[in-house]
Amino acid sequence: MSPSDVDDLVSRARDAEPRAVARLISLVEDASPQLRSVAAALAPYSGRARVIGLTGPPGVGKSTSTSALVTSLRRQGKRVGVLAVDPSSPFSGGALLGDRIRMQEHATDRGVFIRSMATRGHLGGLSWATPQALRVLDAAGFDVVLIETVGVGQSEVDVVSLADTTVVLLAPGMGDGIQAAKAGILEIADLFVVNKADRDGAEATVRDLKNMVAMARRGVGGTSWRQPIVRTIASEMDGVEEVVAALDKHHDWLTSYGELEQRRDRRARAEVEAIALESVRASFAGPGEDVLADLAKRVASGELDPYAAADRLVAGISRP
Amino acid sequence: MSPSDVDDLVSRARDAEPRAVARLISLVEDASPQLRSVAAALAPYSGRARVIGLTGPPGVGKSTSTSALVTSLRRQGKRVGVLAVDPSSPFSGGALLGDRIRMQEHATDRGVFIRSMATRGHLGGLSWATPQALRVLDAAGFDVVLIETVGVGQSEVDVVSLADTTVVLLAPGMGDGIQAAKAGILEIADLFVVNKADRDGAEATVRDLKNMVAMARRGVGGTSWRQPIVRTIASEMDGVEEVVAALDKHHDWLTSYGELEQRRDRRARAEVEAIALESVRASFAGPGEDVLADLAKRVASGELDPYAAADRLVAGISRP
Repeated sequence: MSPSDVDDLVSRARDAEPRAVARLISLVEDASPQLRSVAAALAPYSGRARVIGLTGPPGVGKSTSTSALVTSLRRQGKRVGVLAVDPSSPFSGGALLGDRIRMQEHATDRGVFIRSMATRGHLGGLSWATPQALRVLDAAGFDVVLIETVGVGQSEVDVVSLADTTVVLLAPGMGDGIQAAKAGILEIADLFVVNKADRDGAEATVRDLKNMVAMARRGVGGTSWRQPIVRTIASEMDGVEEVVAALDKHHDWLTSYGELEQRRDRRARAEVEAIALESVRASFAGPGEDVLADLAKRVASGELDPYAAADRLVAGISRP
Repeated sequence: MSPSDVDDLVSRARDAEPRAVARLISLVEDASPQLRSVAAALAPYSGRARVIGLTGPPGVGKSTSTSALVTSLRRQGKRVGVLAVDPSSPFSGGALLGDRIRMQEHATDRGVFIRSMATRGHLGGLSWATPQALRVLDAAGFDVVLIETVGVGQSEVDVVSLADTTVVLLAPGMGDGIQAAKAGILEIADLFVVNKADRDGAEATVRDLKNMVAMARRGVGGTSWRQPIVRTIASEMDGVEEVVAALDKHHDWLTSYGELEQRRDRRARAEVEAIALESVRASFAGPGEDVLADLAKRVASGELDPYAAADRLVAGISRP
């Protein structure tokens, strides 16, 4: 594929041609030889999409909520991309695929693009390909990109590093779950959604969250963001407009206080760092394989300690 | 702390002094300035402990099983170290701490050393500190080190990279869980334990596993390892001796076929690689912070693509 083919593909993606978008994501996802020319072709068109992360423990209705948000954003005429990130744990297996079927109602809508991505790779919960897929959707002119990830392990923290706004979904009846999760979710949430709000215990969940938010805000200044708590029944579209309104409000807050720029700088920083580390790692496995194998043998035998071995490995990194 | 203090600490740890062991683990866990001299002092004593990984989905009784294994190994006069690795997900929070209380029966036994480690850091599920803590326990003369981790995300895969033998724990009544998990657990398990074997469905779980193992072995050579399936009721010590016997058998197999050396070379390789990547990452955050911040700004503005930025970052890595 020549550079002009890549430019053509980017141009067709910007004309909302779904196959061009899909092809570009595949090129970045598979780390194809064209990856770098694709990245270069996308760069000038980046930074326009609003990026919203959705996370929460299993069973709260994340896919249903994502689908409902898509419906609501489409009513406003917005083009919406969805990246559904599955953690590839041997213990979660295919269970999540079933959920994704709920998203099918948007399958024929050209204004919606949905991609499931398995997490993989060496650098934590979110696939290193996810930020690149986000770049494709951004450059292709999607107004909003929703990144949905199940809250297990590192991925719910990583989604925050990509998103302008992070929505934490909860549901009633999670028992001590919220208590246990307190510290973690307070840090990452810009917005709480209590889904399945018609179920027993919904009010208690909302009350717990309110107390949490109030406690955390003690001594916090007046321009800081107060995390809203929105009740939804996503399967019936109940409360979904309110979520969209809260998202808009958060976006206004982000832009008013320079926080959007800061978050996007942080995102770019994490992305550049991850790519750099991946390229260093690849150089260990490729040209440095013999060196590393030899160092590993000497560490295993006790001749060398692993830190001294690592220093030698780093000293031999080849420059790009 | 001078080099001779470190040597003194290592010597006291080798005399089974628990406080010296704990101090050494803290030094490696906190990435203290002494980390490198500790690593160097430990190296000559490494490679003696048998390393056993225990993993499985939540609720199968991992802590109870670990505790029962400790009891059984202590009856054989073996010194046992336990590293209990908690994934630091905001959604699992403190829930695992309660389980750890079950391990308290060994708290006053000098032949047992238990340490809980939170996963953290940028390089996947298992803390990069876990291999270093393992080195401390190994050098301190523990005969067996058990590494217990809950099977969510990447950690159950990472534990395999550290262990000589990996035990996958399951329990009856996990529904479709085993079906979904098939591919993943077959790859990582050297030994299956079906705990809570007095419960309904235990026989069905054992039968499913047997079929899985038989299917996977089609066409496999005669010297390959056949994963045993052991039933236990860990809370009553039922079947635990059988687990220890199966572990011994696997250890014999590992040594007979040169597989132990290969696994330990792989472990050292992963360890050296992780330390090297962490030191590269640290150089981005330290001396390279301004460079990275500038590159990130240019990526965020669309002036530069993230791959080109990463190349510049790697080109500037300072040599140790």
